[in-house]
Amino acid sequence: MHISTAALLRSTTAGAVPATLAQRFSTVRARSVALAAPLSAEDAMLQSMPDASPAKWHLAHTSWFFEHFVLAAQPGYQPLQPHWQVLFNSYYQSIGPAHARARRGLLSRPSLAQVLDYRTAVDARIAARFDEGSMDAQARRHLILGLQHEQQHQELLLTDIKHALWSNPLQPAYRQLQVPASAALPLGWIDNAERIVEIGAPAWPQHAPFAYDNESPRHRVLVAAHRLANRPVNNHEYRQFVEAGGYREPGCWLSQGWELCQAEGWQQPLYWDAHCQREFTLGGWRALDPHAPVSHLSYYEADAYARWAGARLPTEFEWEAAAATVPPAGHFADDDHLHPCTPAAATGSGPVQLFGDVWEWTSSAYAAYPGFRPLPGSLGEYNGKFMCGQYVLRGGSCATARGHVRASYRNFFAPSARWQFAGLRLARDGA
Amino acid sequence: MHISTAALLRSTTAGAVPATLAQRFSTVRARSVALAAPLSAEDAMLQSMPDASPAKWHLAHTSWFFEHFVLAAQPGYQPLQPHWQVLFNSYYQSIGPAHARARRGLLSRPSLAQVLDYRTAVDARIAARFDEGSMDAQARRHLILGLQHEQQHQELLLTDIKHALWSNPLQPAYRQLQVPASAALPLGWIDNAERIVEIGAPAWPQHAPFAYDNESPRHRVLVAAHRLANRPVNNHEYRQFVEAGGYREPGCWLSQGWELCQAEGWQQPLYWDAHCQREFTLGGWRALDPHAPVSHLSYYEADAYARWAGARLPTEFEWEAAAATVPPAGHFADDDHLHPCTPAAATGSGPVQLFGDVWEWTSSAYAAYPGFRPLPGSLGEYNGKFMCGQYVLRGGSCATARGHVRASYRNFFAPSARWQFAGLRLARDGA
Amino acid sequence: MHISTAALLRSTTAGAVPATLAQRFSTVRARSVALAAPLSAEDAMLQSMPDASPAKWHLAHTSWFFEHFVLAAQPGYQPLQPHWQVLFNSYYQSIGPAHARARRGLLSRPSLAQVLDYRTAVDARIAARFDEGSMDAQARRHLILGLQHEQQHQELLLTDIKHALWSNPLQPAYRQLQVPASAALPLGWIDNAERIVEIGAPAWPQHAPFAYDNESPRHRVLVAAHRLANRPVNNHEYRQFVEAGGYREPGCWLSQGWELCQAEGWQQPLYWDAHCQREFTLGGWRALDPHAPVSHLSYYEADAYARWAGARLPTEFEWEAAAATVPPAGHFADDDHLHPCTPAAATGSGPVQLFGDVWEWTSSAYAAYPGFRPLPGSLGEYNGKFMCGQYVLRGGSCATARGHVRASYRNFFAPSARWQFAGLRLARDGA
Amino acid sequence: MHISTAALLRSTTAGAVPATLAQRFSTVRARSVALAAPLSAEDAMLQSMPDASPAKWHLAHTSWFFEHFVLAAQPGYQPLQPHWQVLFNSYYQSIGPAHARARRGLLSRPSLAQVLDYRTAVDARIAARFDEGSMDAQARRHLILGLQHEQQHQELLLTDIKHALWSNPLQPAYRQLQVPASAALPLGWIDNAERIVEIGAPAWPQHAPFAYDNESPRHRVLVAAHRLANRPVNNHEYRQFVEAGGYREPGCWLSQGWELCQAEGWQQPLYWDAHCQREFTLGGWRALDPHAPVSHLSYYEADAYARWAGARLPTEFEWEAAAATVPPAGHFADDDHLHPCTPAAATGSGPVQLFGDVWEWTSSAYAAYPGFRPLPGSLGEYNGKFMCGQYVLRGGSCATARGHVRASYRNFFAPSARWQFAGLRLARDGA
Repeated sequence: MHISTAALLRSTTAGAVPATLAQRFSTVRARSVALAAPLSAEDAMLQSMPDASPAKWHLAHTSWFFEHFVLAAQPGYQPLQPHWQVLFNSYYQSIGPAHARARRGLLSRPSLAQVLDYRTAVDARIAARFDEGSMDAQARRHLILGLQHEQQHQELLLTDIKHALWSNPLQPAYRQLQVPASAALPLGWIDNAERIVEIGAPAWPQHAPFAYDNESPRHRVLVAAHRLANRPVNNHEYRQFVEAGGYREPGCWLSQGWELCQAEGWQQPLYWDAHCQREFTLGGWRALDPHAPVSHLSYYEADAYARWAGARLPTEFEWEAAAATVPPAGHFADDDHLHPCTPAAATGSGPVQLFGDVWEWTSSAYAAYPGFRPLPGSLGEYNGKFMCGQYVLRGGSCATARGHVRASYRNFFAPSARWQFAGLRLARDGA
Repeated sequence: MHISTAALLRSTTAGAVPATLAQRFSTVRARSVALAAPLSAEDAMLQSMPDASPAKWHLAHTSWFFEHFVLAAQPGYQPLQPHWQVLFNSYYQSIGPAHARARRGLLSRPSLAQVLDYRTAVDARIAARFDEGSMDAQARRHLILGLQHEQQHQELLLTDIKHALWSNPLQPAYRQLQVPASAALPLGWIDNAERIVEIGAPAWPQHAPFAYDNESPRHRVLVAAHRLANRPVNNHEYRQFVEAGGYREPGCWLSQGWELCQAEGWQQPLYWDAHCQREFTLGGWRALDPHAPVSHLSYYEADAYARWAGARLPTEFEWEAAAATVPPAGHFADDDHLHPCTPAAATGSGPVQLFGDVWEWTSSAYAAYPGFRPLPGSLGEYNGKFMCGQYVLRGGSCATARGHVRASYRNFFAPSARWQFAGLRLARDGA
Repeated sequence: MHISTAALLRSTTAGAVPATLAQRFSTVRARSVALAAPLSAEDAMLQSMPDASPAKWHLAHTSWFFEHFVLAAQPGYQPLQPHWQVLFNSYYQSIGPAHARARRGLLSRPSLAQVLDYRTAVDARIAARFDEGSMDAQARRHLILGLQHEQQHQELLLTDIKHALWSNPLQPAYRQLQVPASAALPLGWIDNAERIVEIGAPAWPQHAPFAYDNESPRHRVLVAAHRLANRPVNNHEYRQFVEAGGYREPGCWLSQGWELCQAEGWQQPLYWDAHCQREFTLGGWRALDPHAPVSHLSYYEADAYARWAGARLPTEFEWEAAAATVPPAGHFADDDHLHPCTPAAATGSGPVQLFGDVWEWTSSAYAAYPGFRPLPGSLGEYNGKFMCGQYVLRGGSCATARGHVRASYRNFFAPSARWQFAGLRLARDGA
Repeated sequence: MHISTAALLRSTTAGAVPATLAQRFSTVRARSVALAAPLSAEDAMLQSMPDASPAKWHLAHTSWFFEHFVLAAQPGYQPLQPHWQVLFNSYYQSIGPAHARARRGLLSRPSLAQVLDYRTAVDARIAARFDEGSMDAQARRHLILGLQHEQQHQELLLTDIKHALWSNPLQPAYRQLQVPASAALPLGWIDNAERIVEIGAPAWPQHAPFAYDNESPRHRVLVAAHRLANRPVNNHEYRQFVEAGGYREPGCWLSQGWELCQAEGWQQPLYWDAHCQREFTLGGWRALDPHAPVSHLSYYEADAYARWAGARLPTEFEWEAAAATVPPAGHFADDDHLHPCTPAAATGSGPVQLFGDVWEWTSSAYAAYPGFRPLPGSLGEYNGKFMCGQYVLRGGSCATARGHVRASYRNFFAPSARWQFAGLRLARDGA
């Protein structure tokens, strides 16, 4: 199974955007299988913490999503595996019971092979729907959502397996990877005067293109005058914070963050070694690249660093206002580095690396926009019920599928979460 | 000690605003002692949960605050009780170690009598500073802050002792209280068009009057069009939610809230009986008044109710925009009901009961305003480091000192907190 | 309340054994009040861990015991305080619900004064029963048991308050105490050949004198050949174990003990300072007396020390066989040192200090003797249901009432318990 | 891998006792592989609770045991997989660090295939030692111990995988199994007068045949007069206890047991359905056989049942005295039922089913015998350090290898453990 994984992965990401929905479906679905290809059935069962899920579960859950929301919406539908519904329902309480999240790693059955067969069977039924022309408008909408959903799980598959392999004392690599050396880029600041900006996306599906319900409605926000850093904080800068005692003194930390830092014995970012010289990547241990964006920070660490640096995190509105001016270009999972880097020096005076490489923590608590309406039915549970206790991250990472993010895209995690490719960009008040 | 408590309390709240800072100091300090007067030394030691503190600790900590920030700022100052510093430092890490919060109830020593003596001694030293004219500008600023601080602890003393007495199977009353019957007031809605509003207070002490650092700077916020309820949700309305199965179905709840609701077995608001007929008050058990504002809700319950009612919580900006138009009038601790009520029917079409009776949960996560600057030195730990994982409440309650709150005042608690006098006011998108 | 405590205590312990049951009742009851006399009402509320109880609760529970088992056995009895039954029932499930053990420290009401009044009222009713001659045989038996029960709680009152005062950063003394310097006594060994010994006491009340149900029936046990140390391990010896790295190496420890040692960060016995020079006593901090018996050890520490010393703990049968040959003499609570000591050099070659000063951990898990029968009714819950997960300690301590223990007396605690006056005596296989 | 498992298992158990140590080694080692054969690599990774281990870990750890204690004892030995030492060391602190027990399920690497290769390589090296005649006396002793050790893990492999498969909502069977219907056997009692019995085994290796260190030295114990049931308690009898409210009333329970029963919501034995009609077996769900021995009880449940039945658990000495009179015959893992049964009516008046089918909880806390000496070196950690907090079980079960147990064999588990094939036999005082 380990043969030609790179080729397989390449084949699932290369080329132009597929012309039809059926083709996009096929490409995204194949991509998930390709991402799991370097994993043995045993690897695919790993769940190293309750927040993470096994790769096998990701493969199954994303298929269940299509089966439940697309196929089963047709009257008289017979589920492929009736007993699996409870296993692969994630958190949709209005659908029915769900296997406890923290126990997803205990599902040796169905096997990875059976899950892959299940995927194939779901895909075949979807293909048949396309062929027979029975895919109505709602089915197409749910299918489009399902593809976005699957891309999210592709990223989680990567971050979850990274944590799981790191948890094994042998600390094996996910697979061989090439990460370009990063270029130095001086820190600069972009002034932004107070202004009203349009934030968010028009509500999908009434309006195209796709956006999650939590990005809508598009609305006006008054953004105060501020300065935004031209690039994310890099490893060299963050290491200075560590060496200056950043993890030993509470002065820069939020109260909750400091308590967690002490309780967990944090001394440096999640995957760094104790000497701040090396870091664990999906390709195994490698030397820390000083110019690459720092990653695998919790919100607390990002916030503490910013305060130590005499700055602050940007709001999600400040970030979006900047991002709306640039194309969503950057290093994504499709580039197959699967690690943040800054390979080419930026030109011009504008912000760089807003997209890709590392998610950027913002100071914005994840909350509903004015006029927010969840999707109807069970899909209303997709985003809305998590609008508490989390912070917004923006821009996508080296593990995000190209084309998945946009300026209005809102990712969200608890402030304690460290296992995502999450870094930060500095901001300052005034302009 | 139980004799003439009501008279004592009256004497500490009645009359006009004191003319001088020294007089205000004297009044506020006496008020704390009066609030503790109905309590035995044993009652004053109770700590029924880590979030709450014993009354004795409140009495001591507020005195420590004056001693440390006002008296000890003078060179050569000799502390009254050097060994007590660690006991009554709450959370100021830059000052030194602090006794563990969850173990404040284990301080039988110093005794309540010793703490009251300590208060007297601190007060005498402050008085001497006033008399000798050695109270410089910073000392006066810290003293002013200390009085605001003490008023916050007066409210906590009441909510903490309410929880503690309720935790005793005997469920004794704090003392006899008179709560007027509440008047029915039809629910109405006030339309507000989109507009830019000035939010917050000019930074104190550069600008008077007093405001906490978290209320500043005053800044412009674009508030979207919305409708705001004319009054808080009342017990009758909330009971309908309970009776409709609000605590049995996850549909209206945030995910975290539902998990907590199930883990804790919540079936109704904190102090209600199982039949939703009676509630525990500082005056003991009494019949639930259908027209009185519902209280002792967590954010999760307030949010779930609002969703069930086809509405939402207001943002703190929507609330402040409304509150800025009315005087901070309402029922405060000085009225000595110590329970929410709506005794007189409102007149006119505007919002009522924005101030006093119950704090109102807003949908706003507690966060820094653009340009926020914490107070210098250790006092910078007062508010800023808690800007994570909490929600803003507005308007004050029946346990808040009159004059303590204002339109820009921001209280904040974790979304799980139920032991405050916290209710809600509904809002809706559009106008 | 602090005046003449020593005198008060003396008056409750001095003199000959009271002639009548009524007199014994009066003496024991007065003793409890005297032990609590140095405590303020606040001190008497302290509960520093779930295993410990407040002094006030001890005073109330022991009175409830007499009220329930003696007074209330008479038909038509009206309880003095019906609402207090649930508060002061400890663990008698067959009687009814009991206030949660870990929350006994939250009972500010009833006050200490009310509890003392309750004691007085119970005593008066008992006295009336004596006077009117209505104390039947069962009532007398329950009263006798109640007196033994109260003596047990007198010891717990002392060990619980010691822990509670130590938990306060001020670490105040319970009261002034005189502890004699201990005399050096060379370690010697007493050989015992294999033999059948009679263990335990004839079942009370069928047979006098009093013994707990767990001491019966008296039965035959084959005790293997062994050697028993002539005296308990002393502080000097135990300090050698600490200094030799006893708390840093797992080699001598039981697996569970080592896990606990690491989890709790144990470095030395509970009340020793980090330098093994001083120890906290009921009389406050004092220099460690090298010749005094080591105390406040968990079973795990006692067991690890014994293994390190090339020995083992004795079985409870080995201990009892030795103790049966000597009078139950030693330093008890009545001597008012309230700390272990060895003031006079022993004479002769026999074992010394079997009784008093420190309880001695045995290697015997607390279990039923062959033919064990719990007392009938609710009193059957007194001892039997705890026969799991605990180890037997023998001999009484400096906090035990003189006359309370005997050779067959079995105390029991979890192996993790450190807050009792518990030390050890070494044994070895063979003879 | 699922083909011909039964045949494979048969081939590893059938036939006469192998003539040589090398042959025994080969047979036992093959048996472990055969037991794992019905499991996929995913199944073999399951760890459903900290007390259980994955099948793969059992396969690897048992091999590590031979490599470390037999092969590596030879100077200059080069480990097959140096990095695996920490992974497969269970708890030998004197050897070095061990991977955390609760995280054994996170070892996707090494793969099951690699572990099986490792087994083969260890076996080859052992075989080479035999061939070259370099197996000295100590090596042979450690090899003998290693075979006993491996048999213990064979049983754990079965009980652990049973729990793991049951934890999956799909609740798959381990494999198809045939369990004979059980015959009814009236409960009878065997009288035993007081007598001194020889308990335990002469110390191995000084004396043959093999016995664990915890079975020695053989010593004299006085066993009181008692009556012992002729057979274990069966499902029908235990169901009567359940139906009589045994799990709803605390009266028969030890205090700790009742707390656990309530905390965990126990309503019946571990693998029974809520209606007490069916039970989960290694062969999947099947009807409860009323005459089969009840199994999967904790000590607390066994003890409560015995008290409810007016009896008690036997001591391990009472059990051994009876067992010493009968051959160690019964249904063992080799019979391939893997579930307790009583297929043939017993004849005569003696005790039956002392061996095999179900382990029998005794009332004896697991403790050292007088004169106990652990094996020298790291092997001293095998048994001795667990002599705390556990109870002795006797007789072996349907999952124990035939020939593994004997009258003196002492198994031990925490009183809360339910996942072993553990039942009980009643005893009564007197004769």
